[in-house]
Amino acid sequence: MGLGTVFLSEVLGTGILLLLGAGVVANVLLAKSKGFDGGWLLINFGWGLAVFAGVYIAYKSGAHLNPAVTVGILTSGADEFAPGVPVGVGSTLVYFAGEMLGAFLGAVLAWLAYKPHFDATPDEGLKLAVFSTGPAIRSYAWNLVCEIIGTFVLVFVILALGKTPTQLGPLAVAMLVVGIGASLGGPTGYAINPARDLGPRIAHALLPLSYKGTDGEAAPAGATGKKDSDWGYAWVPVVGPVVGGALAGIVAALAF
Amino acid sequence: MGLGTVFLSEVLGTGILLLLGAGVVANVLLAKSKGFDGGWLLINFGWGLAVFAGVYIAYKSGAHLNPAVTVGILTSGADEFAPGVPVGVGSTLVYFAGEMLGAFLGAVLAWLAYKPHFDATPDEGLKLAVFSTGPAIRSYAWNLVCEIIGTFVLVFVILALGKTPTQLGPLAVAMLVVGIGASLGGPTGYAINPARDLGPRIAHALLPLSYKGTDGEAAPAGATGKKDSDWGYAWVPVVGPVVGGALAGIVAALAF
Amino acid sequence: MGLGTVFLSEVLGTGILLLLGAGVVANVLLAKSKGFDGGWLLINFGWGLAVFAGVYIAYKSGAHLNPAVTVGILTSGADEFAPGVPVGVGSTLVYFAGEMLGAFLGAVLAWLAYKPHFDATPDEGLKLAVFSTGPAIRSYAWNLVCEIIGTFVLVFVILALGKTPTQLGPLAVAMLVVGIGASLGGPTGYAINPARDLGPRIAHALLPLSYKGTDGEAAPAGATGKKDSDWGYAWVPVVGPVVGGALAGIVAALAF
Amino acid sequence: MGLGTVFLSEVLGTGILLLLGAGVVANVLLAKSKGFDGGWLLINFGWGLAVFAGVYIAYKSGAHLNPAVTVGILTSGADEFAPGVPVGVGSTLVYFAGEMLGAFLGAVLAWLAYKPHFDATPDEGLKLAVFSTGPAIRSYAWNLVCEIIGTFVLVFVILALGKTPTQLGPLAVAMLVVGIGASLGGPTGYAINPARDLGPRIAHALLPLSYKGTDGEAAPAGATGKKDSDWGYAWVPVVGPVVGGALAGIVAALAF
Repeated sequence: MGLGTVFLSEVLGTGILLLLGAGVVANVLLAKSKGFDGGWLLINFGWGLAVFAGVYIAYKSGAHLNPAVTVGILTSGADEFAPGVPVGVGSTLVYFAGEMLGAFLGAVLAWLAYKPHFDATPDEGLKLAVFSTGPAIRSYAWNLVCEIIGTFVLVFVILALGKTPTQLGPLAVAMLVVGIGASLGGPTGYAINPARDLGPRIAHALLPLSYKGTDGEAAPAGATGKKDSDWGYAWVPVVGPVVGGALAGIVAALAF
Repeated sequence: MGLGTVFLSEVLGTGILLLLGAGVVANVLLAKSKGFDGGWLLINFGWGLAVFAGVYIAYKSGAHLNPAVTVGILTSGADEFAPGVPVGVGSTLVYFAGEMLGAFLGAVLAWLAYKPHFDATPDEGLKLAVFSTGPAIRSYAWNLVCEIIGTFVLVFVILALGKTPTQLGPLAVAMLVVGIGASLGGPTGYAINPARDLGPRIAHALLPLSYKGTDGEAAPAGATGKKDSDWGYAWVPVVGPVVGGALAGIVAALAF
Repeated sequence: MGLGTVFLSEVLGTGILLLLGAGVVANVLLAKSKGFDGGWLLINFGWGLAVFAGVYIAYKSGAHLNPAVTVGILTSGADEFAPGVPVGVGSTLVYFAGEMLGAFLGAVLAWLAYKPHFDATPDEGLKLAVFSTGPAIRSYAWNLVCEIIGTFVLVFVILALGKTPTQLGPLAVAMLVVGIGASLGGPTGYAINPARDLGPRIAHALLPLSYKGTDGEAAPAGATGKKDSDWGYAWVPVVGPVVGGALAGIVAALAF
Repeated sequence: MGLGTVFLSEVLGTGILLLLGAGVVANVLLAKSKGFDGGWLLINFGWGLAVFAGVYIAYKSGAHLNPAVTVGILTSGADEFAPGVPVGVGSTLVYFAGEMLGAFLGAVLAWLAYKPHFDATPDEGLKLAVFSTGPAIRSYAWNLVCEIIGTFVLVFVILALGKTPTQLGPLAVAMLVVGIGASLGGPTGYAINPARDLGPRIAHALLPLSYKGTDGEAAPAGATGKKDSDWGYAWVPVVGPVVGGALAGIVAALAF
């Protein structure tokens, strides 16, 4: 399989992942949405099933959808990223590029799907939260620990899946993501994927978010509808998942 | 397989889909129901498992249950709608007709199952919401965008399913619908199926909804128990899903 | 397979079904329980997964666990209730007896598991609700319609399952029950199974329920801890499911 | 397979189980967590999917993850704990040791993942609840009954799984645990596993839990951040599950 196919496959799969993933956060956080305040389990199922859909779409390239998965496969010593796709510097970069572009585009699509609700939401922090993760208690060291642990679980179990007979495939990964979100999402919002966080953060920085009010209400004086993209935190959900994924690959190579 | 079998199969399957789908909305919205105010995830699982049941019932005809799926299979360039059912004008119309009639009948059955609760509910808008979707923020252009995106995801992933080895079948489609509802249902209530919306809207227009009060309360003066069927919005959940399904078929033909 | 094996298998399976099914209702309704007020979806998953567990336990006898399923298989014209168990008057009665006894015993076990919470709950109606279903709005005719429709869906889809290739088995039935509860459980609490309702109702009538208060509170004057078992309603969740199951078998014989 | 492999496998699997299991409780109970007050079903899915992940990780040793499962396999009269691992005194003790150590380590990891939230939580009882179970109504006899019944269901159904054709494997066990939690978790918080409760209780006793306040709030005078580990109750979630598992093995040997 050519690397162009890999690239397109990862763009499409990660695009669907972020469309649905950012979508469920928008549904729960943005004003007047039908799923407003729908609860943490709704967010967990939304993200888990976002992975589910993305995995089917990206079946050709093995559906990494996540640089931490790509890194974990690499450090596990595997020969191929997917059937017919040898591990190498070039293929690694193609996966990264597809994942990043897909995550960016998927977040833009989610913004389009919820455009009137972005316009109707006064809280600028909630809008950022649709795109990117942020810590419940800001503490870069502990936030990093949490992202490392969460991503380790993700990649470690994915690598175990390949060793066991299972007919579940995408459903197993989806349920795993539901579980990680339920259990380890509390402190940082479980990025567990550098592309999932950084791509949409760039989208947040570029998109023209505004606050228009609805039902004839005027926007409050001083409301710009958009805050900064919290670049000070942006390295945590990149570095943490890369470290966690790399560790998972190494431990999996030893343990399985 | 004859087109009569296709028709009956789609009527039965789409009937079960709407019985359970309209049913879960009734359970959450109508007065005194045991699932009253049960939350968005309950609605998502209700609709997802409504698809699950409907797909088993309509196994003979490939369980489209949705004109947008029929259109997507058509634009994907497939030869058959189901094993032994060639794609053609006649077969397309038979699918459409079965889907519409089934959706209409299923909504009537849901109304029968919840009859005392329709009678006990004063809010006429909630009764319409059991039958048909409506926008959280009315904006025909953006509502259309949302329905196009949601249906694109539905049909695109369904077409990908056919390319991958999976033992999940109906469960995969059910989980996909749970996910689309969780993630993209916020703005418009995710019709993502013209028959699902239009058939029950016709049922709403024809059925004798009333408000009787319960426990000896008199109905308030002026309460008719029924509002108009919001025909001004009715084109959005028809056109959006058809466009989204058609696009998904085209992109799937290119991508997979 | 001998009918003694069938009997024991159905007792065990229906016993687990009611232990877990009555258990989840106890968890949500009884005072001081950790799942108190846990919501309708929790109840739906509890009952669905109760069926899941029961089906595995009763695999030898085909896991009817429900006289309506037995009746539906009978009216569908099948030759066997399970591999090696011919349909007949004797085998039908053995299934019925095992289902009833299992449901009774399972409810008693659920009462034992929640004994301190039964003692701590002042509302006697909630205690009955752990054992048996009751209507949200009492209307015998419409309650019967709702039970007929819900059971029809249950048995009709189960009979369709047997026609389709599926690796899901017990999970499919479990998800179906989650879906029926979510969608059609609002008006009557979805007995959809005569044994599930009547067996525990007998247990309710026989067991010594009391109200003791906790934390040193005295029970209020006049609190007996137990109300009547609502025998006036008891025929609805027996007749409705039998009719619904019988209809489903007949329609399935025509449709599949 | 050597017993060293079994030991490592059970350590890893039970470690993941407790990391995710204690994690979901931390998410729901600890201050400022994103899943705070997320509900009982969230806890049920968190623990069910914790088992799911752990079973994949410990596939080599048959993924007991629970001394009650080990005991149940033993009393069922099986020859092997896993393919190539004969039942015996030595192997039994290796399973127990791996399960205990894994549970201890997993709880420590969960504490690390939620460290800032432990520091931010004033209620010392909630912190203990992240590690170990406790009764909703303290009554050692009835609490024991509840743990016996819950563990009986767990081990009995797991032993039935081995008799039936199923492609679900880990998902079946995960869903079973979701169901037991939903249905039988109300009175005692469903330890149903001696290692799951005792290992983390030891971790609670050893770890330096504190209360630091956040956002510049001082900790209240007298707040130590840690209470005793409730050793008076600790025998219940050990004895109950062992008894329940042993009974399940005996009954399974008779029934299946």
